[in-house]
Parts: sequence; structure tokens; C-alpha cells
Amino acid sequence: MAVYTQVSAEEIEGFVAGYDIGEVIAFKGIAEGVENSNYLLQTSSGFYILTLYEKRVKTQDLPFFLGLMDHLAARGIACPTPIHDRKGEALGALAGRPAAIVSFLNGLSIHRIQPPHCAELGRAMADMHLAGRDFTGTRDNALSLAGWRVLFDACVDQADTVAPGLVSLLAEELEALEKNWPAGLPHGIIHADLFPDNVFFLHEALSGIIDFYFACSDFFAYELAICLNAWCFEPDGAFNITKARHMMTAYRRVRPLEEAELAALPMLARGAALRFLLTRLYDWLNQVDGALVRPKDPREYLKKLRFHQGVSSPAAYGLD
Amino acid sequence: MAVYTQVSAEEIEGFVAGYDIGEVIAFKGIAEGVENSNYLLQTSSGFYILTLYEKRVKTQDLPFFLGLMDHLAARGIACPTPIHDRKGEALGALAGRPAAIVSFLNGLSIHRIQPPHCAELGRAMADMHLAGRDFTGTRDNALSLAGWRVLFDACVDQADTVAPGLVSLLAEELEALEKNWPAGLPHGIIHADLFPDNVFFLHEALSGIIDFYFACSDFFAYELAICLNAWCFEPDGAFNITKARHMMTAYRRVRPLEEAELAALPMLARGAALRFLLTRLYDWLNQVDGALVRPKDPREYLKKLRFHQGVSSPAAYGLD
Repeated sequence: MAVYTQVSAEEIEGFVAGYDIGEVIAFKGIAEGVENSNYLLQTSSGFYILTLYEKRVKTQDLPFFLGLMDHLAARGIACPTPIHDRKGEALGALAGRPAAIVSFLNGLSIHRIQPPHCAELGRAMADMHLAGRDFTGTRDNALSLAGWRVLFDACVDQADTVAPGLVSLLAEELEALEKNWPAGLPHGIIHADLFPDNVFFLHEALSGIIDFYFACSDFFAYELAICLNAWCFEPDGAFNITKARHMMTAYRRVRPLEEAELAALPMLARGAALRFLLTRLYDWLNQVDGALVRPKDPREYLKKLRFHQGVSSPAAYGLD
Repeated sequence: MAVYTQVSAEEIEGFVAGYDIGEVIAFKGIAEGVENSNYLLQTSSGFYILTLYEKRVKTQDLPFFLGLMDHLAARGIACPTPIHDRKGEALGALAGRPAAIVSFLNGLSIHRIQPPHCAELGRAMADMHLAGRDFTGTRDNALSLAGWRVLFDACVDQADTVAPGLVSLLAEELEALEKNWPAGLPHGIIHADLFPDNVFFLHEALSGIIDFYFACSDFFAYELAICLNAWCFEPDGAFNITKARHMMTAYRRVRPLEEAELAALPMLARGAALRFLLTRLYDWLNQVDGALVRPKDPREYLKKLRFHQGVSSPAAYGLD
């Protein structure tokens, strides 16, 4: 759930007057997105989402994110479409923060994930990877190898309070990943945070992908590795190979995977698990008094990392 | 902002299937209401608000609240209309809690209140008081004199940590109110929590009143006293007699006030200030670790109480 910046009726009415979307009818803070403040905005022309960018998103990255959504939406990807103001700008300012209005997407986030949802995800992910190929913007993945080392250093003093032996496990894993991280795999724009919260479904059809604020340039297969972690484990920690097979098969029908991508998958999955383990660990150890966001338990990703450490071939992920 | 009960897509779809309002299209937690969890629900037939009743609302009171909204909406009051399920019930259960679906109201809460908003409020309040006269339900005001004494007793040990001398001020005020509280004034159903957050406007016209979960049987003039406190002070603590005059004049055009009501107003305003001072003080002293609700500063109402203590005649509220 997001921290909300308070926006008065007068401020929102003034802001919306700069757009060609009619008059404000309703405006409510919604519990969507963790990094930013999101509001449901109803105007006489329909429903929109208004986002105020809070401090965790860098202002200089916003043109990349909004440009990417513009690009993907124009190519038929079910993502929010930035609304441009009367001057043609997608990025404005409201209540002292950068702000944007995007289209409202129908659909619900699924909690009880079934294999057909994973197949839909795989197909949509491949569509998105292909649609992004001619996008001219680039953005380094700040949460790849170098970023993990920074997070590790920031957590090293207290990590063992979360799980005994965690520091040495993280140190060894980080070293292994730094030594064995793949190079030269097919790459392009990835979403990089494709968790179930960020994907909407209507019945079993994927209807929307939201929250592009971690999007960056990285290996396409790393996105698959993130989704293996985020979508293919059961609440009890068990890996569900059926879900993985559905996701992988549907992805490959749209964008075939190269041999090198398949071979790299176990290492990429370890990296993805470490990435979310480290960011959750950092947030866990640096809780802000009075914050409205409850940090997630980092140990979930410790279990997932251990699973991937035991994987010796991509067959474990349902790949032939 | 509300604490949210997590509701899965599967749970909400199952719940909505019991109503004749179409299929679920979107479902988002919204930052509205402090006592309950509220969600924006979009179905193929339109937009609704779904409320899960959290522990602060007593289950046995829910038929009163929902029946009252039914009654008022049927008489043209701009309040949420409970949607009845296929069995005719307005109250259901979801995610282990009592739950109800009500109509979505257009409009925005105003932060920068102007005198015309207060006039609209006065008119709508009087309309609501009249519309409730033939409602057969009754509910004692748990937050009147007897309730204040209970809250005072619960805060007495720590109240002086919030403001020096607060305990003795509260003790004397409570005694004065117990001695001088009016009797026999015109009474009926009041909203009892008619704060700006609970009133929507479209431009300068009042478009909706929400959150009836403190509604009860009490003096009509006590509602005016609450609104004098909630709507007619400036952010710097100064009382704005112009706003009060607008509210009072508009109210009296619809429902004339008796002499006894006018005479009682200063005492009622002191009581209303004490009521919010005590509930805020209690919440301030009993903050829950990890709660998503930030308690409001009780000292705002200490200032307001002191203002009313200095009032000797209803003329101070813009009354002739």
C-alpha cells in the first residue's frame, strides 16, 4: 500500500484543467503500488489513474517510464497509456511532486494463481519484449549485480538477526553470481517487477500490466527468472513445475529462447531470488516509524534462493 | 486511511455473484473511511463501494446503519444506497467479516472550505434530519455524556503528557457538561460524524454524504454543534463566524430552530469539542504498532473547546 501525498480538491481540479479530459467528478487514493501515491480519478470523460511520484523514483527516469508506456500501448500491449496535457506533456507537477495521468485498466490481481494464468503471463511477457525492441530509450538496471553488492554492504551488520548464517550465505552467493553471471544473452526492455500485484486478469485472460517503474534494459531471460520466482512457488514454498512449464511454453511460442538463455536460467533465477531477498532485507532492516508500508518478509526469498541453488539444469523449470 | 483486509480476486468474484450487478471488472482498496476497509468495485453494471466492517463497528448495529441509508436514499438524500443481494439482504459476509455493497457517489471532499460549502452543508443536514423523522430504527449515541466519562477515565493517567493541565481541564469540563447538558430538545437521527471528509461536493454543490457508521439518535442541534467544530474553524484555530452564519442560516431555512435549541448551542458546542478531544486523545495514547492509521492531534480540539468555553450567547455563532 502506498504512502499518500494529500492532494486537495482544489489542487486536483487545477491540475486536470490542463488536460483535455473533462471535469473532475471523483478522486480517491487507492491502495496500488508501493513506490508512489496512486489515485483513482473520475472525470466527465471516464476513469483514470493519477500517480504522484514519491522519492524512491528518480525524476530523471520518468520520461523513460512514460515514454515506454506510450510506446508499448501504441503497439497493443495492455499497459497504462499516459495522457498528454494540452501542451503535449505526459509529465506534470502536482502538490510539489512529479505527476502523471494514465488510462484506467480493467482487471483484478490474482491471488490464487493457476497454471493458465502463468501461460497468459508468459505470452504477454514475450509480446512485451518484442514490442519494446524498437523503443529508443535505455535505462541501466540499478538492481543488478553491482546494486546487489551495495545492498549487501548496507545490510551486512544486521542480516544475521533476520536468519542465522544469512551474511555468509549472501556473501558466497554474491561471489558465485559475480563469477558466473551470463553475458551476451538477448536483451532489451524488461518490466523487472512483474509480480502478481502488477498483472490484471479478467476471468483467466490477462487484461493489463501496470507499474513500469523498475523497467530497464536487461536480459529478456532475466525477466523469466524473476517470474519463475514470483509466480511459480506455492504459499508453502514448494516450486510448482506445472506453472513454470505453462509460462515457459507460452513465452517460447511468441519468442523462442536460445540455447544460451536456457542454459543460463538456473543462474538467472538465483540472481532474481537474491535481488528480491536483498531489497526485502534492506527494507526489513530499515523500517521507517509511522510508515504506511509493511515490509515483506525477506525469508520467503531465502527459501527460493536455496531451491535454485539446488537446480542443475533448466529441466527443473519444465523446459525440455 | 483505512486498514485493509486482504480480499482475493476469487473471494470478491464469489461474493458479487450473489448480487444482480453483473461481473467484477476491477476491485481496488481505497483510502476512504477510518473505521472500515473500503474498496472501489467496478462491475459490468457500473461502479460501487464495497465495505468490510472492521472490529470498531459493532455487528449488531449494521442493520441500523444500512436500514438508515436505505431510508434516506429513498427520500432523496444524497447518501450511499445499499445494494441488496438476490435474497434481498443488504448485509453479507466476505473474508470473514460483515460486508455490504453500496452505490458509488460522485464528488470530492473539500479541503479549503468556503462559506458557500457551509451553506450547502446546513441545507443538506436539515434535509437529512427531516428525512430521518419517520425512520423506525433507533441507536443510542455511545459517544455522548456517559461515553465521555468512560474515555476520560481511560485517559486520565497519561493525558497530561499530551498537554500540561489537561487532566484537570477535562475533569472540570466533564463535570460542567454533566451538570448543564440540555434535555428535551428536538431529537431524531443524526449523522454524528459530519466532517469534511464525509461530505462530497461537485463544484460548490453538495453531492454526497458518506460514512453513516456513527449515526445515532440525539438532539438535532448537537449535529449543528459538531459541524460548528468541524467546518467553521480556520487552520490557524480562529473561529470563522461567516461560515457559521452561512451554515446556520441555510439549516434554519429548511428546519427552523427553537429558542431552546439556540440557547443550548454554546453548551452543545462544548460537548461536541470535548467528544472529539477525548476520542482523539484516546487514539493518541493508544497507538497500535504497525497500524496504518495515523492518529490526529487531539490538541486541535482542546483549542476549539477553549473557544466555546468563552462563548456566552449563540450570537457568537452568527445567530440573531
